[in-house]
Amino acid sequence: MIISIRSQADSDERAQLMALLCRVIDARQPITTTHVDGRDVIVLAGGALDEQSSVLLKQQSAVECLLALKTPYQLVSRAFKPEGSSIVVGKQTGGNPVTIGSERGAPVIIAGPCSVEGREQILANAAAVKAAGAHILRGGAFKPRTSPYQFHGLGLEGLELLAEARAATGLPVITEVMEPGMVETVAQYADILQIGSRNMQNYSLLQAAGRNSQQRPVMLKRGFAATIDEWLLAAEYVVAAGNPDVILCERGIRSFDTHTRNVLDLTCVPLLHELTHLPIIVDPSHATGRRELVPMMSRAAIAAGADGLILEAHLDPESAVSDGRQTITIERLQGIVRQTSMIARIMQESDIEQVA
Amino acid sequence: MIISIRSQADSDERAQLMALLCRVIDARQPITTTHVDGRDVIVLAGGALDEQSSVLLKQQSAVECLLALKTPYQLVSRAFKPEGSSIVVGKQTGGNPVTIGSERGAPVIIAGPCSVEGREQILANAAAVKAAGAHILRGGAFKPRTSPYQFHGLGLEGLELLAEARAATGLPVITEVMEPGMVETVAQYADILQIGSRNMQNYSLLQAAGRNSQQRPVMLKRGFAATIDEWLLAAEYVVAAGNPDVILCERGIRSFDTHTRNVLDLTCVPLLHELTHLPIIVDPSHATGRRELVPMMSRAAIAAGADGLILEAHLDPESAVSDGRQTITIERLQGIVRQTSMIARIMQESDIEQVA
Amino acid sequence: MIISIRSQADSDERAQLMALLCRVIDARQPITTTHVDGRDVIVLAGGALDEQSSVLLKQQSAVECLLALKTPYQLVSRAFKPEGSSIVVGKQTGGNPVTIGSERGAPVIIAGPCSVEGREQILANAAAVKAAGAHILRGGAFKPRTSPYQFHGLGLEGLELLAEARAATGLPVITEVMEPGMVETVAQYADILQIGSRNMQNYSLLQAAGRNSQQRPVMLKRGFAATIDEWLLAAEYVVAAGNPDVILCERGIRSFDTHTRNVLDLTCVPLLHELTHLPIIVDPSHATGRRELVPMMSRAAIAAGADGLILEAHLDPESAVSDGRQTITIERLQGIVRQTSMIARIMQESDIEQVA
Amino acid sequence: MIISIRSQADSDERAQLMALLCRVIDARQPITTTHVDGRDVIVLAGGALDEQSSVLLKQQSAVECLLALKTPYQLVSRAFKPEGSSIVVGKQTGGNPVTIGSERGAPVIIAGPCSVEGREQILANAAAVKAAGAHILRGGAFKPRTSPYQFHGLGLEGLELLAEARAATGLPVITEVMEPGMVETVAQYADILQIGSRNMQNYSLLQAAGRNSQQRPVMLKRGFAATIDEWLLAAEYVVAAGNPDVILCERGIRSFDTHTRNVLDLTCVPLLHELTHLPIIVDPSHATGRRELVPMMSRAAIAAGADGLILEAHLDPESAVSDGRQTITIERLQGIVRQTSMIARIMQESDIEQVA
Repeated sequence: MIISIRSQADSDERAQLMALLCRVIDARQPITTTHVDGRDVIVLAGGALDEQSSVLLKQQSAVECLLALKTPYQLVSRAFKPEGSSIVVGKQTGGNPVTIGSERGAPVIIAGPCSVEGREQILANAAAVKAAGAHILRGGAFKPRTSPYQFHGLGLEGLELLAEARAATGLPVITEVMEPGMVETVAQYADILQIGSRNMQNYSLLQAAGRNSQQRPVMLKRGFAATIDEWLLAAEYVVAAGNPDVILCERGIRSFDTHTRNVLDLTCVPLLHELTHLPIIVDPSHATGRRELVPMMSRAAIAAGADGLILEAHLDPESAVSDGRQTITIERLQGIVRQTSMIARIMQESDIEQVA
Repeated sequence: MIISIRSQADSDERAQLMALLCRVIDARQPITTTHVDGRDVIVLAGGALDEQSSVLLKQQSAVECLLALKTPYQLVSRAFKPEGSSIVVGKQTGGNPVTIGSERGAPVIIAGPCSVEGREQILANAAAVKAAGAHILRGGAFKPRTSPYQFHGLGLEGLELLAEARAATGLPVITEVMEPGMVETVAQYADILQIGSRNMQNYSLLQAAGRNSQQRPVMLKRGFAATIDEWLLAAEYVVAAGNPDVILCERGIRSFDTHTRNVLDLTCVPLLHELTHLPIIVDPSHATGRRELVPMMSRAAIAAGADGLILEAHLDPESAVSDGRQTITIERLQGIVRQTSMIARIMQESDIEQVA
Repeated sequence: MIISIRSQADSDERAQLMALLCRVIDARQPITTTHVDGRDVIVLAGGALDEQSSVLLKQQSAVECLLALKTPYQLVSRAFKPEGSSIVVGKQTGGNPVTIGSERGAPVIIAGPCSVEGREQILANAAAVKAAGAHILRGGAFKPRTSPYQFHGLGLEGLELLAEARAATGLPVITEVMEPGMVETVAQYADILQIGSRNMQNYSLLQAAGRNSQQRPVMLKRGFAATIDEWLLAAEYVVAAGNPDVILCERGIRSFDTHTRNVLDLTCVPLLHELTHLPIIVDPSHATGRRELVPMMSRAAIAAGADGLILEAHLDPESAVSDGRQTITIERLQGIVRQTSMIARIMQESDIEQVA
Repeated sequence: MIISIRSQADSDERAQLMALLCRVIDARQPITTTHVDGRDVIVLAGGALDEQSSVLLKQQSAVECLLALKTPYQLVSRAFKPEGSSIVVGKQTGGNPVTIGSERGAPVIIAGPCSVEGREQILANAAAVKAAGAHILRGGAFKPRTSPYQFHGLGLEGLELLAEARAATGLPVITEVMEPGMVETVAQYADILQIGSRNMQNYSLLQAAGRNSQQRPVMLKRGFAATIDEWLLAAEYVVAAGNPDVILCERGIRSFDTHTRNVLDLTCVPLLHELTHLPIIVDPSHATGRRELVPMMSRAAIAAGADGLILEAHLDPESAVSDGRQTITIERLQGIVRQTSMIARIMQESDIEQVA
C-alpha cells in the first residue's frame, strides 16, 4: 500500500502518522519512506490494511491519499502513475538532453562499442554513431565477464574516455556499474547507470544506485532468467531507495535452443506497458548474439512498442575486443535508425488503440 | 547429401545408380527417394561421402548434381532452394488462391475462431474475417485438448461447415489433423493441413501428411519446446515423404514466466529465413494467450520478417467455446491487417538489405 | 467429478441416471463412461456440480457414490485410489509375471538395448540382462528418430524377435508403439506398450492404447517439456479410454545446460506418489545421455522412491546402432541391481514415514 | 593454462618468468597470480600456448610445471587436483571442526532456521539440530528478498547471535553475505561465507570473498539458471582471488512446472565430481519449496554422491518468519540424518566403482 503525504504536512503531523502506522501494522513489517515525483510517500508491503486502520489513516492530516495495489511492486506499477514516466538524461552533464519514454516520438537509440578500448576507438566510434543517428553513447568501462581470466575493461580510465567522448559529441553516455562501492564514482561520469543482467537481484547494488547522489537514472537489464514480477520488484528496490528514474531493458532470456544466445522476449514490451509506467528499451545485440539478426529484431522491438534500443555498433566490428560477433556496422546502425523511425511513425498515426 | 536425378534418366540408368549407392554407403543407412520441385531426388543421411564415391556418383548418367549439406535437414535447407518457396493454396478447391512466402507483398492473414462451433457461427465469422481483410479462414474441427474431458470439436461436421464457409466466401480454409488415419479425410475438405504443436514430432502423422493424395500444403506448428533443428527435421519428414509445400508456424515456446502462456520467439523468423526456404507464419494468439497483446505482437512479427499471421478472431470473443481469452474482435483484426500491411510496405521500400 | 455405478444397477437404472445427467450438465460437456478396477464409472469434467444436482444424483439407484475432485485429472488421482496401483505384467504372454508399483519390494529393473538390431543381438542381450538381475526386457522395434534419414528399427521383425527373446528367457518385454494403427499389432507381441516422450500428447495414440484389445499396460514417458499436470492428464486419456494400467516414466526434461541431454527431475517421484496412484519408473539413460552418470542417478532415483528403472544396457555398448553413448555394460547393470536393492531395503526398514 | 612456481624460486627468478610471459602472450590477456594448496601459481586464460613459448617457459628456473587444460575453468578443475578437496571448517573459531568433501564418511549435515529471528529462537534451534545429528548450523542474518518490503534479517545482531549459538553448541556456523563491503564483517563471525543464488555472478562479491582476511571457506550456491560451466567459473573467481576453499551447493534450477519452486538437478552431482575437485552440497529445501518432498530428495542427493546437505529445519516450522513452507521439523531432520548415513555407508561398502 502506498500512502502519499501532503506536501504541506509539518513534522508533527508526520510523526503522528508514523506513530499510528507503528500501531496498526505488524511490528516486523518494514515501513519504507521515499520521495518520488515530487511527493513524499510511505510504502507498506502487502495489499490493503483492514478497513478500520484504513479509515484511521485517511483521517490523518498528513495523509493525502491511500493507494492499495494488489501487485507485489508498488511505486513502479502503472496504477501509481497512469500517464507513464518520461526520463530526461544528459542535462546535468552538458550532453544534449534526451527524453526516454512516454511521449512517443522517434525511438531512442543507444549505440556504441561493447567496451571502451582506448581513446581513439571511443572517440571515433562516438562520432560515428552520432552521425548515424544515435542519441546516447554506450561503452563498457567495467565489464562483468563469465571468466576471471577475460578482459575486464579499462576501469576509471574508461570512464574518463566516455566523458571525453560526451564532451566531443554531445551524446550522453551510459555505462555499467558492478558494485555498490563504485556507484558514486560511475555516477560522476555517466549519464545513466547500467545495472547488468547478472546483477538484477544484487540488492545492495540496486539500493546504492537508488541513492546515488547525482540522481542519475538507472537502466536495469532483465536477469536472464528473471520473471516479469522479479524484474519489477528489482526496479522497485531502486525507486524505493529514492530514485524514480528507472529504465527497463529486455535483453533476452535463457532457453534451450543454441542457434541464438538467448530468446528475445518481445511480448514483455506491451505487457510491461500495461504493468508499469517505466520506459522499456530492448537490446537485440545481447539477446541474439548474432549481428545478422539485429536489424530485424530492432524493427520488431519498435513495432512491439519499445521506447528505444540499445545496440552494439562499431566502426570495425571484427576488431572489437569483446562481443564482435553481435556488433553491427555503422551503416547497419544508420539503416536501423531510419527504419525504426518510420515504423514508430506509422504506429503513432495509425488508428489502432495503444495497448496500455 | 542430396542427389538430383536427370529428368531424362531412364529406368536402367536409375537402377544402375541405386546399385552403385548400395555399394558405397553403409548397408543400414536409409536411402530416401522423393520428388520435389519437379525433380526426382535421393537423400542420404549425413554429410559428404568420401571423395572416391563422390566421383563415381557424379559419373553416373542418371545424376544431375550432388549437393553435400552440413545441416542435418536437407530438402528444407535454404541451400537447396536459395530463391525461397512460395506456396499457392486454394486453387484446387475453388477458393480464391493465396500465395504464401517468397514474393513479399502484404502479409498473409489467416483468421477465424478457435473452433467450428456450428453453421451460423462459422459462416458469420468467415464473412466477418473476410471483410476485415483476412485471406484464409481458420477453424478447428478436431481439437487436441489437454484433458480428455474437454470439448474436442465437431469432427466431420466441422469439416463440412468449413467447406461451406469457403464456398460462401472464397476463403481457403485451414484446419488441424491429429492422426494419420484422418489425413485423407481432412485433405478432402481443407486447403491446408495444420499439424499442431503437440504433434510436431508425431512422425507417422508427418509422413501421412507428406503423402496426402490431394497434395495439400501442411502448416507445421513448432513444438512448444522444440529446437529450431528439430522443427526443421520435422518439416523434412513431410518433404521427404513427397510433399514440398510446408509452411512453418511459430506459436511460442515454454518458459518460466506465468504472465503469458508462452514466450513468442520472434528471433526465429529471420533465423529461419537464413536456414530454410520455407515460409514462416506467426501465431501471436496462442503464444501470448492474451488478446490485449495480440496487436502489438502481430506488428512485431511482420517487422521481424514473417510471411503472415494466424489469428484467433471472433465476432463475439467472450462467447467462444475455447480460447476466448486470446481471441480478438473483428475490429481489432481489421486494425492489424491495415497496420501490418503498412509495416510490410516500409520494409520493402526501405533500403536495408534483407537478412537472408 | 467421478460417479461410481453400483455393479447391480440394471440398464433401466443406468438409463435413468444418464437422462438425469444430460439435464443437469451443460449440453456441450462430454460425459465419459469407463470401467476401472472392476467398477463402471462416469467422469464429468470440472469439479463439483451445484448442490441440488448432487443431491438428485445421489438419490439415483444406479449411483454408488460421487467423488468430487479438485484436480483436472480424476481417475489417475491418488484420491480415487488411495492404496496405490500395482500392475502385473507378463502373465498372459507366458513370461515370468512381474508386479510394478505399490508393494514396495526390490525395484523393478527394465533393461536391454536401445534397438532390436538382429536375432543374435537381442537373444544374447536378453540372456545377459536376465543374468544381471533385470526383470523385464526393453528393445525398440519402431524407433522415433529426430531425422527422417536415421535408422527407424526393424519393425515387425523386431517384434517377433522380442517375443522370441521372451520365450527364451521368461522376461516380459516392453517396446514402443508410435501410431494408433499399430497398437493392436504391437499389443500382440509386447507385454507393455511404451508411449514415447514425443507422443505424450498424441491423443489418438493414447486413446488407441487405452482401448487395446489385449489389455496391455501402457508405460507413458513424460514429454520432455510437459508439466506434471499435463502428464497426468495424458495418463487420464489412457485410463478414461478403458485401460487402468498405466505406468509413468520420468526421462528428463529440457533445460539450458548442454553437459547432459536433459535434466532428470527426480523431485517428481515423491510428488507423483502424492498426486497419483500410478507407479513411477525412472529412465536415467535418456535423461543423462551419458553412461558414466547412469549408476549414480539410478541409485538416486530409487532413493527418491521410484518403483523401478528402465536402463539401456548392452553386451557391447560401443557397437549399438543407436544411443551407445548412454548405454551401460552388463557388469554395470549388475552393480546397479545390487545397489538399488540395498537402498530400497534400507528405505523400507527405516522408520522414516513414507511421503505418500 | 596453469603455471606452478617452484617454492624455492627467488624473486629474481620470478621476475624473469613474468618478463618472459609478458613477451609471449597477448598484451591484453590478464595474468592471474595466486596461491593455492601451498603453491604459487600463475593462470593464463585460454588453453595451450604455442609450442615454442611452452618450451621457453618450461626452461625457466622458476617454473615447476605447466598444466594446459581445455576447460574454461582452471584451478577448480579435477585435472588440477585429481584427489579431490576436503575443506575443514570451524577450527579457528572454536567450533567442533567438520571436514567437507573427499574423505567419504557420513554426509555433512548443515541445518537450522531460514532466518535468525531472535536469541531464544536461534539458541533453541541450534541445540535441537545438534541433538538431531547436524554438524553445522545455518541461519540468515542478512536475507536477500525479492521485494524491498520484506523482512531483511537482523543484520549484525543476527551475526552475534550465531556466534553465541556456536559457543553454546560447538556447531560451526554458515550465513550469507550479500555485498563486498560486508565480507570482512561476516567473516569475523561465520565459519563459512554463503554466497546466494542471486549473487552467483556478482563478481565483486566473489572476489571479495576470495580475499577475505580470515580465510573463511565459501559456499557458492548455483544461480537458478546458471550452467555448470558458469558455476565453475564463478567458483574460479573465488579461488583465483586466493581462496581455495569453495563448496558448491546445488539448490534447484528454474523451469516451467509450478508444483515445486525449482527443479533439483541431482545429475549435476556426479557430473561435478568428474569436472571439479570441489565438494558438493545439496539444498533440497530451496529446490523443492515443500517440506514433504525434503526427506526423499535428501536421500536421493546422498545416493547421487553429494558430500552433504543443507536443510531448513525448525522446532516450530509454522512459526518461521520466512520459508516456513519448506522447513522440516527436528524429528524429520533426525530421520534424514539416520537414513542418509545408511545410504552413504552402503555406497562405500558396495563394489560399484565411483564415477569419478
